[in-house]
Amino acid sequence: MLIERVAILGTGLIGASVGLALRAHGFSGEISGWDPDAGELAVALRRGAIHVAAPSGLTAASAADVILLCGPVLTILDWLNRLAPALKPGQLVTDVGSVKGALVEQARGRYNLRQSAGFLPGHPMAGKEVSGAANADATLFNGAAWLFTETPESRAMHPASRALAEEWRGWTEKFGCRVLDLEPERHDVLCAWVSHLPQFVSTALTALLQDEFAAKDEVLPIGGRALREMTRLGASPYSMWRDVAHTNTEAIAATLLALEQRLAHLRENLKTPELREEFERANQFRGSQR
Amino acid sequence: MLIERVAILGTGLIGASVGLALRAHGFSGEISGWDPDAGELAVALRRGAIHVAAPSGLTAASAADVILLCGPVLTILDWLNRLAPALKPGQLVTDVGSVKGALVEQARGRYNLRQSAGFLPGHPMAGKEVSGAANADATLFNGAAWLFTETPESRAMHPASRALAEEWRGWTEKFGCRVLDLEPERHDVLCAWVSHLPQFVSTALTALLQDEFAAKDEVLPIGGRALREMTRLGASPYSMWRDVAHTNTEAIAATLLALEQRLAHLRENLKTPELREEFERANQFRGSQR
Repeated sequence: MLIERVAILGTGLIGASVGLALRAHGFSGEISGWDPDAGELAVALRRGAIHVAAPSGLTAASAADVILLCGPVLTILDWLNRLAPALKPGQLVTDVGSVKGALVEQARGRYNLRQSAGFLPGHPMAGKEVSGAANADATLFNGAAWLFTETPESRAMHPASRALAEEWRGWTEKFGCRVLDLEPERHDVLCAWVSHLPQFVSTALTALLQDEFAAKDEVLPIGGRALREMTRLGASPYSMWRDVAHTNTEAIAATLLALEQRLAHLRENLKTPELREEFERANQFRGSQR
Repeated sequence: MLIERVAILGTGLIGASVGLALRAHGFSGEISGWDPDAGELAVALRRGAIHVAAPSGLTAASAADVILLCGPVLTILDWLNRLAPALKPGQLVTDVGSVKGALVEQARGRYNLRQSAGFLPGHPMAGKEVSGAANADATLFNGAAWLFTETPESRAMHPASRALAEEWRGWTEKFGCRVLDLEPERHDVLCAWVSHLPQFVSTALTALLQDEFAAKDEVLPIGGRALREMTRLGASPYSMWRDVAHTNTEAIAATLLALEQRLAHLRENLKTPELREEFERANQFRGSQR
């Protein structure tokens, strides 16, 4: 075990869940944590997701082997900047950000050099529509994919950091994740389709229903499971998705436009045989998903 | 107990679930069934959703107090036509169709007259993305709304049919349903929003993903719960939704157009404060839903 001290910067839903998962899978080192929200930090400590609440993110990071950056993408981006001059070879920064291109770009020239810490870009495909350490769960990652988007630069990080990176990948496998490697750009396009588009569609549908039914008492007793599921992500927090929208704008806009056109096509074909084609395509996707 | 014999025409998912629910809640009369698919009928019989497999729908209907029409809307419409001359006062036809305006229109002048059977238009807001008697479930309706769309004509049905209608409403309450009354036109607009729109959005999104990812092996390990939920209804059968699209076209087209515009608005505002507004509206809807 090379990783003896982990610092979690951002002890909300994902950060606290990683802390709980580490301990549930036998991590015997020390986990320190920091969060800009003192309440979140206290909950993470009380729930045992971290052993120590650090006075600052920098304090926690300086003393750690592995620094895990959690939270909205732009917050992670900011930490990448601030930590770079304070860290050294033999330390490893990794993250859980939903967009990878912007982070990998930011790390270039700051990490993975002979005299710098390593940066291993990561993204667990797990979450909830509710946030906060109170909703953290040691089993959140079980069965999910944990994506890594290493580049030739990160693969060439200092050997002491490299060894930590390999061990960290091993921990995500212990959490029950399937580990997949993707190019950062491919990651961002793929996640626009399978994660960001579903989120923004649900937000748009839910906001539309909110406007349409000021007296929701009429709607709520009627909508069944379909309505509940299609609007569940409507509860997702703006604070997280703003940064995704800001850092993966082009890819998301392309998927939204494609769906707009698809809905228009369906609308114009409600009474033609083309409707059957659309249902059959959808059936195929779901058939193969089982 | 006025209802001694129930005939279920269409013993698929919903029809067979009603049969199972009746028996689970102590119905002591006889339930006969018929289905155009002999296999579905056999499964319904084997599972105990019906006591008797009738040789024809007309045979079953003629001998019953309550005739429950299940299946796609246009099939129900066709049965309303065919049964009208064969039935008499003191019998009641009711249904589970997803669209009510077209059915109420069809019943006008054929039912609810002095010399005709009664027609009670009904719609349980429950279902699954999978069809067939094999997936039927006595608890399917528990906690759901069962909508009725009576008009002045149906309220004036023959007193012997009226009494059956009141008892039938009582059975749906025993199934665990909240009974709600709506005007047929209002029903169709409301269901376009809370049921038909979510279905068609899921179909369009799922069909789009099917086209985008010919090699689904890339997508499936990555998509999490959000992707699964947002595409679950993509498995829904065309056969049922074709009839909904054909009989509620205008209302559905209006909701699709509204969502297209909403998605375009969101796409154009991925980097503006308007995105926050959309998330907050969506959060409000979900907040009030808890």
